[in-house]
Amino acid sequence: MKANIKKIAVLTSGGDAPGMNAAVRAVVRSSVYYNLDVYGIYKGYDGLINGDIEQLQVRSVSNILSRGGTFLLSARSDEFRTKEGRAKAYKNFKANDLDALVVIGGDGSFTGADVFSQEYDVPVLGIPGTIDNDLAGTDFTIGYDTACNTATEAIDKIRDTASSHERLFFVEVMGRDAGFIAVNSGISGGAVAMLLPEHNWGIDDLIRRLQRGASSEKASNIVIVAEGCKLGSAYDIAAKVKTQLDYFDIRVTVLGHLQRGGSPTTSDRVLASRLGVAAVEGLLNGQSNVMVGVVNSNVVYTPINEAVKTIKKIDAEEFRIAKILSI
Amino acid sequence: MKANIKKIAVLTSGGDAPGMNAAVRAVVRSSVYYNLDVYGIYKGYDGLINGDIEQLQVRSVSNILSRGGTFLLSARSDEFRTKEGRAKAYKNFKANDLDALVVIGGDGSFTGADVFSQEYDVPVLGIPGTIDNDLAGTDFTIGYDTACNTATEAIDKIRDTASSHERLFFVEVMGRDAGFIAVNSGISGGAVAMLLPEHNWGIDDLIRRLQRGASSEKASNIVIVAEGCKLGSAYDIAAKVKTQLDYFDIRVTVLGHLQRGGSPTTSDRVLASRLGVAAVEGLLNGQSNVMVGVVNSNVVYTPINEAVKTIKKIDAEEFRIAKILSI
Amino acid sequence: MKANIKKIAVLTSGGDAPGMNAAVRAVVRSSVYYNLDVYGIYKGYDGLINGDIEQLQVRSVSNILSRGGTFLLSARSDEFRTKEGRAKAYKNFKANDLDALVVIGGDGSFTGADVFSQEYDVPVLGIPGTIDNDLAGTDFTIGYDTACNTATEAIDKIRDTASSHERLFFVEVMGRDAGFIAVNSGISGGAVAMLLPEHNWGIDDLIRRLQRGASSEKASNIVIVAEGCKLGSAYDIAAKVKTQLDYFDIRVTVLGHLQRGGSPTTSDRVLASRLGVAAVEGLLNGQSNVMVGVVNSNVVYTPINEAVKTIKKIDAEEFRIAKILSI
Amino acid sequence: MKANIKKIAVLTSGGDAPGMNAAVRAVVRSSVYYNLDVYGIYKGYDGLINGDIEQLQVRSVSNILSRGGTFLLSARSDEFRTKEGRAKAYKNFKANDLDALVVIGGDGSFTGADVFSQEYDVPVLGIPGTIDNDLAGTDFTIGYDTACNTATEAIDKIRDTASSHERLFFVEVMGRDAGFIAVNSGISGGAVAMLLPEHNWGIDDLIRRLQRGASSEKASNIVIVAEGCKLGSAYDIAAKVKTQLDYFDIRVTVLGHLQRGGSPTTSDRVLASRLGVAAVEGLLNGQSNVMVGVVNSNVVYTPINEAVKTIKKIDAEEFRIAKILSI
Repeated sequence: MKANIKKIAVLTSGGDAPGMNAAVRAVVRSSVYYNLDVYGIYKGYDGLINGDIEQLQVRSVSNILSRGGTFLLSARSDEFRTKEGRAKAYKNFKANDLDALVVIGGDGSFTGADVFSQEYDVPVLGIPGTIDNDLAGTDFTIGYDTACNTATEAIDKIRDTASSHERLFFVEVMGRDAGFIAVNSGISGGAVAMLLPEHNWGIDDLIRRLQRGASSEKASNIVIVAEGCKLGSAYDIAAKVKTQLDYFDIRVTVLGHLQRGGSPTTSDRVLASRLGVAAVEGLLNGQSNVMVGVVNSNVVYTPINEAVKTIKKIDAEEFRIAKILSI
Repeated sequence: MKANIKKIAVLTSGGDAPGMNAAVRAVVRSSVYYNLDVYGIYKGYDGLINGDIEQLQVRSVSNILSRGGTFLLSARSDEFRTKEGRAKAYKNFKANDLDALVVIGGDGSFTGADVFSQEYDVPVLGIPGTIDNDLAGTDFTIGYDTACNTATEAIDKIRDTASSHERLFFVEVMGRDAGFIAVNSGISGGAVAMLLPEHNWGIDDLIRRLQRGASSEKASNIVIVAEGCKLGSAYDIAAKVKTQLDYFDIRVTVLGHLQRGGSPTTSDRVLASRLGVAAVEGLLNGQSNVMVGVVNSNVVYTPINEAVKTIKKIDAEEFRIAKILSI
Repeated sequence: MKANIKKIAVLTSGGDAPGMNAAVRAVVRSSVYYNLDVYGIYKGYDGLINGDIEQLQVRSVSNILSRGGTFLLSARSDEFRTKEGRAKAYKNFKANDLDALVVIGGDGSFTGADVFSQEYDVPVLGIPGTIDNDLAGTDFTIGYDTACNTATEAIDKIRDTASSHERLFFVEVMGRDAGFIAVNSGISGGAVAMLLPEHNWGIDDLIRRLQRGASSEKASNIVIVAEGCKLGSAYDIAAKVKTQLDYFDIRVTVLGHLQRGGSPTTSDRVLASRLGVAAVEGLLNGQSNVMVGVVNSNVVYTPINEAVKTIKKIDAEEFRIAKILSI
Repeated sequence: MKANIKKIAVLTSGGDAPGMNAAVRAVVRSSVYYNLDVYGIYKGYDGLINGDIEQLQVRSVSNILSRGGTFLLSARSDEFRTKEGRAKAYKNFKANDLDALVVIGGDGSFTGADVFSQEYDVPVLGIPGTIDNDLAGTDFTIGYDTACNTATEAIDKIRDTASSHERLFFVEVMGRDAGFIAVNSGISGGAVAMLLPEHNWGIDDLIRRLQRGASSEKASNIVIVAEGCKLGSAYDIAAKVKTQLDYFDIRVTVLGHLQRGGSPTTSDRVLASRLGVAAVEGLLNGQSNVMVGVVNSNVVYTPINEAVKTIKKIDAEEFRIAKILSI
């Protein structure tokens, strides 16, 4: 059963992620393909509240496929969390004759979308765009693969200097409460250990592991610390290790925001392209208040509240592999 | 039921692929983890025939995780295709007291492994290492993701000059008889068309598409040609198009062997790490004459002859997406 | 003595080069800094002939510093080579009340500028933008450093596969009649030989060198062929070598247009920034019909015809170094 | 007058820099070219003190040209600062029959070399290897160009997220007491301001500049802070700015050690190659206790104490350009 959708709008919300532009491009181009009008809302929900809305054409999304960030701009909107904010947003939604809304973002953005959709009976479709990969309903989120590669390239560079000086480096990577970037860039960067939010690896385990490496004359060591790690920041953990293993020459690097930028990888561009098309096709097929994802190579639509509430787990297998390889 | 494996050997064979080193490292480290002796065979099957074999330690695979190519070297062995060649190989296999063989390579290498395994009742385990992604029994082969990203980065650069001069570029990518690199780098690079071995897109379709773009003032066009495309090489196709659309300023670039090299991506390193561990664990668990792969995120073992004979298909969905987005 | 310049125009012409955008940005921003009006002419001289001219603001050049290509577009104009074409161009020049013209390009573009400047007494200032580095009056041209790095990265990738298979690769790089990219990327990529337009290295020398390497068991060899090499294309030379050294496993890669694209390096962005500012300041100081360059770290202005006619020589020292290192 | 040099040793000392491997390779290969024996000393001066010395062959430096770090390892030696330490070092120097020493490093390493050379009348030749570019007697030090490009690429990525969120970023770059990396990556990254050790730009100037940008609706701002900046760390400065301009959404990233690693750029490889050859030729020509550098494209030899004591100045012109372009 086809929904009666003629005019859709798209926005990017929350922390930006590489591939968001590719997703917007796919939403715009597939809208044109299906003869829909498509509008861009600038600065996330704030743009909907303030009427910062503009019709987009195929031309509007030329040459953005390869670019990091989001040309629609993004923000976390406090006002949209209020009933009044959402009322203003809906007013602009109707004033522009919009039939549906595509939201590219993470869980905070989707929670807002969920509330809005229910309050005003607006068809909303979420596309998972966050480097953290912390959304259920999709194997991967847009931006995650790029962030992992950015982290890996940084670790490779740090490895050069760690090896040259036989040092121990603590490298803090992003991921909020999830350890996906940490475990993947850790395996990929040959880390001796990864301290994740999801595991209760204590300082003592880490110290034993470092001692064992030292006794076998392992020349350099890199420990990955996820930003959500409960043992503290990379600086905290480095300080604790130093008190017990003072023969190590220790350095700390916090990779920071560069993990959010950069030209998206092939995987992220292809994923963003698929999800952008699937979002438009989902709306045309009557989907509403769902997030579109790719699970086992297939497009699936998951109710937004389910995608947000379910906690996605790190693959236990990957963590097991990491332990075997870091002997 | 555990197999009685004490000593294994590993070789890389056929065309090299980024991530082969990461796979060898994983085989070596997991062998050490499971208290096995592990040997490296140099230059593929030729090294087995010539006794170019050496024990490897954890140290032997330091600092190779991030490197393209294969430090074990690779080759296509004509001698191993002969009964005499395989007899020599088996003699060295026994002389070194080897219990099992891990082969990292593509379908040609696996066919050899299959014959050898059956002739001499040697446990052989294949790890799919080829940029072409043309093996059934695994969603992705080692090196494929890196090759796609290398092709995408090259296309991005070509796009700069295509846009600046409003030109039409034909870019030929690798992949032998399979269009995987072509379709993925095509979506990722925003190509107007991809000419694949698997599809009978004619020159006429291409010309119609280019004419349509020209009439809507599309400024630059990139057409991806898979090396196995039945319409001819990128040069052939460009020449045919030129005769009919002489107002286009046309250039051709054949990406060539740079697609085989480079530091592997995070995905390829993680995949290689998983498969390397799974190969050793498979042998310990009595697997023989199988290829290990990852399907829907799970490790699976597929009989080698099945992996080689089944033709893996391009995801029709991806090709559909590509058509929608290239309007 | 200050010239009476109020309104200047800038165009990019000839083959595009990474850093052209950075140069345009510097021209625009320094014009605004000096309270000049600044106009962009699209598609090189053709845009001047056709009146494709638009005023630029600081905002017009936001976010272009890091981008390859030229947003002003470029072309080689046949019409501007005719008296009639230049007459049309001058008509538009006056119609827009322009006082001076900044031309970013190579020798072909500068020759046109020279003629135009003399015919119509128009102050013209050239900025050297070409990957070929073949202009006298400047140590480096904009885009050259980026092209060398692009070539080097490609050679590094090819080295991975050359080493893994113990192959001999012929890699053809750009540079038209000049061997700058070839000699620099050759030293940088560890090539065994570089065949340049400027040197009469014969096939026999090359073969002797390859034989010597083979006898010392050099595992892989990369020979760089400049596109202007008088011995023929990389394919021609490879074929000649094959007839005499048939034990080599030979491959050829022509890097092609990807050398023109990509985000400019730090050096190219800084050079483009300096030259863009110096162009505007030169015009304000009464310079006309000169090319601005950087020689020994200082800005210098050279009469355009001198910059074009003088043949810039490859540093003999560099070639000597290359020979010593490729033993 | 030729010196009687038959056997030379090479070491890398102090902070590692990309291109050190390329310099070692050039020293080794040119030594072989000139029929000298060449030895590698591991871990800097500590290796000389401890006799960690090994003869090197052409083969020893295969495939290191493109690698960051230093395979000879590096360290800052406390023991070499003592008379006893240097005595041990000299004992090993004589025990190995060495005639001369090539030291690749920065000012600390050269000061040690200077003392050693004078105490024991040992011919010492310094090659400037440091990302900081803070040595007189050479236009550029090995590693500086790579570090600038690494910083620029990181700033480009940060720009993506700064633009998408209209944020103000403070990015801290390396360089110790010198602002070379800061000013070059600042121009290259389009920074609104660069806070250098060499300039007394106050917080007030910075605030005025940011206010001016805000009033002209500049969407994103990046301020580069050199690590040696006297106003404090990037965090300190960000905090001060926040108290006065609380409407800015501010983030801080400290790039850290990743600036030391990575594959060297073409410029750094070519520079390292030239200097490595020139070091060996200098020793053969009787040079002693000098640093070899490249000034205005020519090789020059400068007495080590002069190279160390002279403070190299930031090009005032560059800083002026930066100010004009950041309007």
